[in-house]
Amino acid sequence: MNKPIRRYIQIYTGNGKGKTTAAIGQAIRAAGHGLRTFIVMFMKEHRYGELQSLQHLREWITVEQYGNDNFVFSKQSPGDQDRALARQALKRAREAMLSKQYDIVILDEVCVTTYFKLLDDVLPLLDEKPDEVELILTGRYCPQEWIEKADLVTEMQEIKHYYQKGVQARKGFES
Amino acid sequence: MNKPIRRYIQIYTGNGKGKTTAAIGQAIRAAGHGLRTFIVMFMKEHRYGELQSLQHLREWITVEQYGNDNFVFSKQSPGDQDRALARQALKRAREAMLSKQYDIVILDEVCVTTYFKLLDDVLPLLDEKPDEVELILTGRYCPQEWIEKADLVTEMQEIKHYYQKGVQARKGFES
Repeated sequence: MNKPIRRYIQIYTGNGKGKTTAAIGQAIRAAGHGLRTFIVMFMKEHRYGELQSLQHLREWITVEQYGNDNFVFSKQSPGDQDRALARQALKRAREAMLSKQYDIVILDEVCVTTYFKLLDDVLPLLDEKPDEVELILTGRYCPQEWIEKADLVTEMQEIKHYYQKGVQARKGFES
Repeated sequence: MNKPIRRYIQIYTGNGKGKTTAAIGQAIRAAGHGLRTFIVMFMKEHRYGELQSLQHLREWITVEQYGNDNFVFSKQSPGDQDRALARQALKRAREAMLSKQYDIVILDEVCVTTYFKLLDDVLPLLDEKPDEVELILTGRYCPQEWIEKADLVTEMQEIKHYYQKGVQARKGFES
């Protein structure tokens, strides 16, 4: 008899560059072994380069985007629409997680949604995770209770960032 | 007149998971904007899942592997062949960097080669970097002098790792 599959919860948090790219890279690695990944991007509407590239791997990797981070840059509080989109994204992630269609579900930037009080019920999703699904959460400001539930947590610490020298976000690198 | 392109040196180091995957994810993001990446993997001979997946993006991303890390696991000192392969990998990275064919050159696990004294001359490569090429170096034990030369450095800190609970490396996740 085959041993039942047991998968885990991974979190990539911290203020350094590399959280979303690490999650994308993990999906790419997994696809090479035939594993299927569903990626939900929270608070992102920009057409990041990876969306284009991942089209070439759409047999294994599906991406959906919900919301935007305009309210962050405009230093406003998020509105009802921001909360509704975050809620929709979480719903899609949960459906994917329970669908038996995916080996990995990535909730990109979900930690940040909690910081901005867009969502308050991510924790129950972690409890509902089926054994055979790997959950990967990314974003700054990961709440301590999620870290306690997770099996692997990496903190991306900014040691140096070119933003400090005035370099702007660049196509192909930050977007 | 177009502003000349100015690209940078990025380093992903530390003991946490996510260094190689972040570099791969960066190549994926860049490919979506038509940028070309050359990846040299040091001390790796295993057929990591990403090698298979990246075939689908071979128009933008080229990968070459040199060496293996058997000597690490067997707790032996690296031999002449290990040093020769690391040297060859560095030579290929340098050729790619100077070829004007690539926007990004990734030296995956190169930091580790220095720790094991496989190479002692990576620093001059950083000085030779043409403005229009982004160099990305990954691996634990990054020497301080490289960090000083870099423009962006993220330390992946292990907060929690499932290895600590006895989970073995898994296909699609670690390999």
